[in-house]
Amino acid sequence: MKNILIIGAGKSSSYLIKYLLEKSNKEKLRLTVGDISTENANKLINNHKNAKSVILDIFNIEQRRYFIQKADIIISMLPARFHPEIAKDCIHYKKHMVTASYISEEMKELDTAVKEKGLIFMNEIGVDPGIDHMSAMQVIDRIRKNDAKMLLFESFTGGLVAPESDTNLWNYKFTWNPRNVVLAGQGGAAMFIQEGTYKYIPYHKLFRRTEFLNINGNKKFEAYANRDSLKYRSIYGLEEIPTMYRGTIRKVGFSRAWNIFIQLGMTDDSYTIENSENMSYRDFVNLFLAYSPSDSVELKLRSYLKIDQDDIMWEKLVELDIFNPKKKIGLKNATPAQMLQKILEESWTLNKYDKDMIVMQHLFGYERNGKKEQIESSLIVYGENQTYTAMAKTVGLPVGIAALKILKGKIKTPGVQRPITKEIYEPILKELSLYGIKFTERKVPYLGYNPNHVTG
Amino acid sequence: MKNILIIGAGKSSSYLIKYLLEKSNKEKLRLTVGDISTENANKLINNHKNAKSVILDIFNIEQRRYFIQKADIIISMLPARFHPEIAKDCIHYKKHMVTASYISEEMKELDTAVKEKGLIFMNEIGVDPGIDHMSAMQVIDRIRKNDAKMLLFESFTGGLVAPESDTNLWNYKFTWNPRNVVLAGQGGAAMFIQEGTYKYIPYHKLFRRTEFLNINGNKKFEAYANRDSLKYRSIYGLEEIPTMYRGTIRKVGFSRAWNIFIQLGMTDDSYTIENSENMSYRDFVNLFLAYSPSDSVELKLRSYLKIDQDDIMWEKLVELDIFNPKKKIGLKNATPAQMLQKILEESWTLNKYDKDMIVMQHLFGYERNGKKEQIESSLIVYGENQTYTAMAKTVGLPVGIAALKILKGKIKTPGVQRPITKEIYEPILKELSLYGIKFTERKVPYLGYNPNHVTG
Repeated sequence: MKNILIIGAGKSSSYLIKYLLEKSNKEKLRLTVGDISTENANKLINNHKNAKSVILDIFNIEQRRYFIQKADIIISMLPARFHPEIAKDCIHYKKHMVTASYISEEMKELDTAVKEKGLIFMNEIGVDPGIDHMSAMQVIDRIRKNDAKMLLFESFTGGLVAPESDTNLWNYKFTWNPRNVVLAGQGGAAMFIQEGTYKYIPYHKLFRRTEFLNINGNKKFEAYANRDSLKYRSIYGLEEIPTMYRGTIRKVGFSRAWNIFIQLGMTDDSYTIENSENMSYRDFVNLFLAYSPSDSVELKLRSYLKIDQDDIMWEKLVELDIFNPKKKIGLKNATPAQMLQKILEESWTLNKYDKDMIVMQHLFGYERNGKKEQIESSLIVYGENQTYTAMAKTVGLPVGIAALKILKGKIKTPGVQRPITKEIYEPILKELSLYGIKFTERKVPYLGYNPNHVTG
Repeated sequence: MKNILIIGAGKSSSYLIKYLLEKSNKEKLRLTVGDISTENANKLINNHKNAKSVILDIFNIEQRRYFIQKADIIISMLPARFHPEIAKDCIHYKKHMVTASYISEEMKELDTAVKEKGLIFMNEIGVDPGIDHMSAMQVIDRIRKNDAKMLLFESFTGGLVAPESDTNLWNYKFTWNPRNVVLAGQGGAAMFIQEGTYKYIPYHKLFRRTEFLNINGNKKFEAYANRDSLKYRSIYGLEEIPTMYRGTIRKVGFSRAWNIFIQLGMTDDSYTIENSENMSYRDFVNLFLAYSPSDSVELKLRSYLKIDQDDIMWEKLVELDIFNPKKKIGLKNATPAQMLQKILEESWTLNKYDKDMIVMQHLFGYERNGKKEQIESSLIVYGENQTYTAMAKTVGLPVGIAALKILKGKIKTPGVQRPITKEIYEPILKELSLYGIKFTERKVPYLGYNPNHVTG
């Protein structure tokens, strides 16, 4: 009998629990799902005999340690900031650990202690980070094994609505944490390297410097640059590569319209607005426009940002009902970003029958025997419903598969790590393909840095 | 005999020392000017019998306390972050203190201790903050005394080149700390209130939302909003005022061109550029533009920011020689802001015979007996040369006058304070007028919020 403790029964745990329960008889697994409330855990467990839900408040040290001690492996599905305390207990009680989060500085510092105890702390094993690492490294290792030299690596991921649920002008709904979507790109310039030249895009230009993407023949995608593409050079062992770019995928036209909110200052999360609670949507817009005793909010906005009245961007704003003088924000001491989120949630929340979609694409450019070639590798995963979403599937499955492989001794190398070695990515990608998570690869002419680049 | 210790013999101390030395015989003053080097102090003292220069390193606690103990009042002309240590010594040894800096949280916390010892810690008594506070409060108090109700307060200050030195297309040179000019406006949205409506301008729009100013009949000025105008409502006792705006003055056209640097991301001080030292000016510009194997840096920039080739903004960039592929930045691990500063200093450093100028304007709108009126109050001060600049004069004179009035018991109220009460501003403004620092006041029709507003 192997005991698995899953901490956190939120949106991203559905597929993880489903996967492990399906394996539980054959692999002799016992699942304990802990959260501050058992409601969602009970739904996901659905009276399965090999699982139980428990109340687990990670700030209750005794409770936390009690459950960690009883498990063979701990999966933390909590936000990254909660991992370090759990990780320290795992070291103390000699337990393996799995998370889908980026390795924080605090987590990194535990590496020596984790290795000393022969433990595996697998991180970044969700979708992005996670499937992106594994699928990229598999191709990169293959290219290098063939004595080819990597010239270009571009990688794009996006969480979007599935085509049948793509019903608004923005071609977008919140399939994940809305707050992260509103704040995306903030905190510093986006950095990458193209043909050996460093490039920096400030936040206020980020959504105007998009790339067009052709994914499995569908050209309706675009991407904006992620914040730090440069650090992936050392992570992937591509220190000398002249082009390295990572981006986030949206449907074409999203970024140009989103830029309106940035230009106005609506995504700012650094200060609060007086009397935000009683403001109307229209009042909110007017905060960012010059005072006028007579001009309308609409005209001021159009004139300020030079938006033609027949521009589709304008229709997108109208669709959000952002000029409504009657709808109240209803949030006390809110930041502009929180107020904007409130307005967007009204329009972009998935309805009961909406489905989501995960889209990923890598471009690998390389030179072999003096010839330049390029591989394009793409993935689209559709959600099944509001519980078993594409996001939950692509995050939860690799987490679950990794946990099982660690328990069974198939993944052996100890330490705080991410899935970038063959030992890890090979078996996990193989099993993922059984669940329909499989990249379509094709050779394309070497194009060098994206020729469809938009200079905005 | 009264002993005055001046800490810091930098650019802003020239007029201060000159003023106090002129008064030294009559008022029986002895000046000690301390700095980490005596070179500049000796130049400013010029062998005057009532003054001496000393080596004073404020991080040397014994040295610092030795000189503080011997003085009757301490004037700190150092950057604001160095004041608290000096202030604590002043409390310990029961010495008054004067600074031209904004009251920091740390300084504010000393208020109780300062009052208990009956000391006066006068801060914000330079030009901005300083002369702005005093000249504004004098008019505001007069208006309120006449049973009028304040409706509007707008206040603008700028450090510029004098007309005879205004020789470049930007109508601007560095008359003060260049770093502060490059970073101006960063750190959060600009906030103010107009006709009862809060307004917020994000940094990337700040220089496109300028106001035009007419100063003594000269319409060639503009202003961009300072970061927090709202807090001045409580400082000036104008909690209920519907319009409160503070701004920084430039010559018309400066802001529109400066906005290019902001749009490109060149004023970012939050990250460093690899190999900045060996980059050319042209390489620097190219960091912020899309990669192209063939298009020129010039064309990419013009297309990106939609600048017509006959736009004066373009000439301004060319004047800075910013596209030069041969000139090297020569700064190691520099931030974009530091690199930009390097390029600007080459063009905007004052030459030996250049003179500077301080420009200030307040607008006071009020209602009395059902009638709305407006007062416009303006000040222009010209520098004499590179030592006795307008900046040094307008900072140093109020500091010196305040120190003397405190020493002579003319300013009595103890505490950590700024010059906003009649006890302080009345005698100081009176004496400043003897030195040509005098506002021109005129009644104008009540215009309400600036009708020349530019919505950018």
